[in-house]
Amino acid sequence: MGIKRKIISGVGKAYLKIKGVKTGEAIILYGFPRVNLANGGKIVIGDNVAMCSTCKGNPLGVNHRVILSAVKPESEIIIGNDTGMSGTTICAAKSVKIGNNCLIGANVTITDYDFHPVKPVGRRYNTNADDIGCVPVIVEDNVWLGMNVVVLKGVTVGQNSVIAAGSIITKSIPPNCIAGGNPARVLKKI
Amino acid sequence: MGIKRKIISGVGKAYLKIKGVKTGEAIILYGFPRVNLANGGKIVIGDNVAMCSTCKGNPLGVNHRVILSAVKPESEIIIGNDTGMSGTTICAAKSVKIGNNCLIGANVTITDYDFHPVKPVGRRYNTNADDIGCVPVIVEDNVWLGMNVVVLKGVTVGQNSVIAAGSIITKSIPPNCIAGGNPARVLKKI
Amino acid sequence: MGIKRKIISGVGKAYLKIKGVKTGEAIILYGFPRVNLANGGKIVIGDNVAMCSTCKGNPLGVNHRVILSAVKPESEIIIGNDTGMSGTTICAAKSVKIGNNCLIGANVTITDYDFHPVKPVGRRYNTNADDIGCVPVIVEDNVWLGMNVVVLKGVTVGQNSVIAAGSIITKSIPPNCIAGGNPARVLKKI
Repeated sequence: MGIKRKIISGVGKAYLKIKGVKTGEAIILYGFPRVNLANGGKIVIGDNVAMCSTCKGNPLGVNHRVILSAVKPESEIIIGNDTGMSGTTICAAKSVKIGNNCLIGANVTITDYDFHPVKPVGRRYNTNADDIGCVPVIVEDNVWLGMNVVVLKGVTVGQNSVIAAGSIITKSIPPNCIAGGNPARVLKKI
Repeated sequence: MGIKRKIISGVGKAYLKIKGVKTGEAIILYGFPRVNLANGGKIVIGDNVAMCSTCKGNPLGVNHRVILSAVKPESEIIIGNDTGMSGTTICAAKSVKIGNNCLIGANVTITDYDFHPVKPVGRRYNTNADDIGCVPVIVEDNVWLGMNVVVLKGVTVGQNSVIAAGSIITKSIPPNCIAGGNPARVLKKI
Repeated sequence: MGIKRKIISGVGKAYLKIKGVKTGEAIILYGFPRVNLANGGKIVIGDNVAMCSTCKGNPLGVNHRVILSAVKPESEIIIGNDTGMSGTTICAAKSVKIGNNCLIGANVTITDYDFHPVKPVGRRYNTNADDIGCVPVIVEDNVWLGMNVVVLKGVTVGQNSVIAAGSIITKSIPPNCIAGGNPARVLKKI
């Protein structure tokens, strides 16, 4: 199928190490992810994590490279073992934790902050975390996020749950269910 | 307008032939689509089909090249005459058929399978088609899919219907209507 | 954070001038936007506008360059002072006006026309503006559009309002409120 050209694990680990990322035993990369790591910030990736940053690694295609942005000195991104993602953006001002065995579909975005405050005065240049709203995000073990899903601040997606393609997740989703829509709601139990 | 730089039809046909795709009389390409064709799989494109894989061909822009993925030996993608698409992804495990005169808007995704099963155990590596759910998709003649639409497994979109931008289509849409939303519902008859 | 590599303002202004765009005092570019300007069309950009066309300028990533398409001789795109955008597409057949101090999130699309008519006969090649539906769009001062938002023809988004990520805006949104969903509805007052 011509979609299996991956980077040697040791090369991928070396690349991520240079970028300041701690990686597990092996890493499966299609193309190189983009890493934005603030001084003092932390990005830790488990064993056998797969990251697809080119259209060669996923038949759905990716809109851009995997992007891992830990934007403040206190920011952390923690990704468990055996988790895979394609064209995903993860932005952490505080903390984004992704469990083991998660499937993060093509072009998903996960962010624990809103980038700008709702209050109108000085919105563009106000970087005060209390004004902006930064609340940690947790994606528990074995969660599957469908393509184009957006996970917003303060959300926990419970273990084993499945989020339908194109959903916008504004509130936490319990474990063992299927959820979907904009905004996402629980559709049924698994 | 500077957005009209297309590949000569013969060159496009030769490229697609090398990739194993059967094409009709003429083909209109802006940039080269990406083709993932499993041994035994089938991709057939009609006459005067237009595929836009660069931002030069559509003022809305494309997120990536057109991607045609027939991922299994029994997979088929059939595209009728005079149909156009931009930055579209089509993934077939069984069958995706698109009719004549269809307008597939920028960055649409059409897939007849879910990539992973809902049941939690072994979700990442389970490739059993019965577990995953593969059901053919049909987009009938003269359908117009708006930008960013996602068409999921088992859907038929009836002749002449129009799907609003950003819709997620989880169930079939009858002919001669406008539908939209996440999930998409019929909004009115044309 | 490695995401601050911008083009010198004078170079950006010179590039845009060559493309036929009128710019204000200073311009902040990450990568070069794509400009499609029909003969007679008009694109005017205010002072201190920021346009991010690469993943270096926004930790959320961009799907493609900023695209400004004024597709007809009577088309105009007007962007106010101190407005920023990332990976945004703006398509004007008549008029798209964006105010001062607006925040246009990653991968937003704003268009004042539908590209094709709803009526089925001759849909692909019918370029009659009356059939297609072209109605000016206005994004008032200090509006914030979240990532992946789509703004469709005829919409006015009122001053200070905030549109949630992933929303599809089909009808006007009043000032000083938060709106979201597909289609977008007012959620609360600010």
